[in-house]
Amino acid sequence: MRQRTRVAIVGAGPAGMLLAHLLDAHGIESVIVETRSQAYVLARIRAGILEHSTVELLRSVGLGDRLDAEGLPHRGIYLQTPQERHHLDFVDLVGRQVWVYGQTEVQKDLVAARTRAGQAVYYGVADVELDDLTTDRPTVRFTDADGVQRTLEADAVAGCDGSFGPSRAAIPAAVTSVWERTYPYSWLGVLASVPPSTDELIYAWHPDGFAMHSMRSAQVSRLYLQVPNGTRVDEWSHDRIWEALSTRLGHTGWELAAGPITEAAVLPMRSFVQSPMRHGRLFLAGDAAHIVPPTGAKGLNLAVADVALLARALAALLVDGDAGPADAYSETALRRVWRCTHFSWWMTSMLHTSGDPFDAQLQMSQLRWLFSSTAGATGLAENYAGLPLDL
Amino acid sequence: MRQRTRVAIVGAGPAGMLLAHLLDAHGIESVIVETRSQAYVLARIRAGILEHSTVELLRSVGLGDRLDAEGLPHRGIYLQTPQERHHLDFVDLVGRQVWVYGQTEVQKDLVAARTRAGQAVYYGVADVELDDLTTDRPTVRFTDADGVQRTLEADAVAGCDGSFGPSRAAIPAAVTSVWERTYPYSWLGVLASVPPSTDELIYAWHPDGFAMHSMRSAQVSRLYLQVPNGTRVDEWSHDRIWEALSTRLGHTGWELAAGPITEAAVLPMRSFVQSPMRHGRLFLAGDAAHIVPPTGAKGLNLAVADVALLARALAALLVDGDAGPADAYSETALRRVWRCTHFSWWMTSMLHTSGDPFDAQLQMSQLRWLFSSTAGATGLAENYAGLPLDL
Repeated sequence: MRQRTRVAIVGAGPAGMLLAHLLDAHGIESVIVETRSQAYVLARIRAGILEHSTVELLRSVGLGDRLDAEGLPHRGIYLQTPQERHHLDFVDLVGRQVWVYGQTEVQKDLVAARTRAGQAVYYGVADVELDDLTTDRPTVRFTDADGVQRTLEADAVAGCDGSFGPSRAAIPAAVTSVWERTYPYSWLGVLASVPPSTDELIYAWHPDGFAMHSMRSAQVSRLYLQVPNGTRVDEWSHDRIWEALSTRLGHTGWELAAGPITEAAVLPMRSFVQSPMRHGRLFLAGDAAHIVPPTGAKGLNLAVADVALLARALAALLVDGDAGPADAYSETALRRVWRCTHFSWWMTSMLHTSGDPFDAQLQMSQLRWLFSSTAGATGLAENYAGLPLDL
Repeated sequence: MRQRTRVAIVGAGPAGMLLAHLLDAHGIESVIVETRSQAYVLARIRAGILEHSTVELLRSVGLGDRLDAEGLPHRGIYLQTPQERHHLDFVDLVGRQVWVYGQTEVQKDLVAARTRAGQAVYYGVADVELDDLTTDRPTVRFTDADGVQRTLEADAVAGCDGSFGPSRAAIPAAVTSVWERTYPYSWLGVLASVPPSTDELIYAWHPDGFAMHSMRSAQVSRLYLQVPNGTRVDEWSHDRIWEALSTRLGHTGWELAAGPITEAAVLPMRSFVQSPMRHGRLFLAGDAAHIVPPTGAKGLNLAVADVALLARALAALLVDGDAGPADAYSETALRRVWRCTHFSWWMTSMLHTSGDPFDAQLQMSQLRWLFSSTAGATGLAENYAGLPLDL
């Protein structure tokens, strides 16, 4: 079955759903296809920090109500070495703050809004193929959840289907450049049913390895430990996890409250950038074009920034007949992508132990400088709390 | 022959000579021993950039006249990628500037001042041995240039004899920690009899490798090229050197003036820190305790900062009988040492190509950020133009 739409969106995660929402505001109709089920996409635990411009954007398109009611605004973060816990106050430094509001919550808000608007979404599809991308009538073929073969005929295709989806692979290798780095460590991340022992996130450098105390709500803590690549979750008993967290996050006069661990997983750390982010009428956004390690909390925010840019570019192309912003999309988006790729690499490299004692001294000297220099702290804050959307 | 002195100083380079000068101002007499000849020490070409606090210190002890007359004050530096040459104005950013004034000139001023003051210096000595360091009467034994065996009996010994001198080695390995990094590239440095093609230093990132345009005077240029380790000077004809400099420093509307090359040498790049910088009555200063790669222009300035701190510590110990500053010397000095070690590593890592394309993208993203962010530029400026002496 053939179906006409303006924009065929591959992927119903936050990037694809938000793009549909933004296009709708421009009067542009779209259809989304997603290989996973709606339940899976809604439950997927990912990022938890929204930067300033992400929050501004969500509010400006009617997605800010629950975020404002339930999100936890944070003025900054704690950075620490075994000697010192230091608060970086982003509001004082750059006049911007961040919000703790899980990707699952953003996804719920997006699903609710798109459902109200009657958004066409095909969940549980298979055999997704992108064709005719260098024509004005690109197509997305797929088999729907009922086994029906369908073809979307669109004016443009948005690849919001992550690193392993078909969109990225649809751009010929001959015109593609790829940059990649795998880090020599992973994160063991846990969710625990215990009120956070901190008001704001703690990023801790420790000789045993990096540790982080984040949170999902006033009742749920999110905690991370640097572990060697290849670590299996079952190597870490809950006691061992709490002991390591307590040591690495340790700070005089402060105690970490332990509680039941409800979820534990080992997360790899990777940097990846593919360029260009556009091929004919196919536009990549979010993880489809780039992956950052989670240390700088940039993945979701970068996807939102891509999509904000892409929605404007597609509106210019499809409503005003102006191809300029679409032609500039890849280069413009990649400026921010590389800024965040660098920042995420820098935060990661500064905080994870490599086993090299010279590296350890450089890291501690770097952290002491951030603790003492307004310029140093401001540099971190302006990257973390968020660069302007129009970077 | 035995000889009594308050402080026995090993090494007559800028660190040792300046220490003698500063001690003299406190009324503390000293004797210097140096394995090289005076002519060798005076001719040795090394650093060329004096940071703000170094200049302030030299002026405050009567060593600023020729520096003020002949030194070239610079407001900042140029940083560039192949796309953009960007001026970082240290005066605007942090209210401090730097001076181009060669180490050879500082050395001349020190020799002139110490000669006028009747400083005892033994040049061309051999068989230097440090003993009784953990007593109140440490000794330095040596054979003087006439073959006479001499012993200095002192209250304290200052090791200002660089990385390969006997002072560093006189501290037992069991109480010593060492951190070291060798970089996978070297500098080919040339002196050329041609007026500089730039008013301020140019640090250039280029896919072929780092290049730098510095200067010694209005008539003499100092230029550097990143080359692989193991490069021999004779692999680089003068034509090849100018061609590579012209490519790497290339900038639209700008030309590099070539001229006769009077000196060329390959310089290794190394970071090295030894701790503690004090053992009993032996105090290390400058290259004897730490080496930085030259990219941040920190080596000489760090030696001056050590010596300023050490002179005060020795005055407290030997004049006031207060051991506090001497006891704190190593820890205090090492704070600055690690700050400068980190900064020098950072400048080096940011500007030298590693051959890894992901590194190249990170470097360019870092540089673009420094070009556009006041916080980023200020962070570089406060480290480059000089931290306060009492860091």
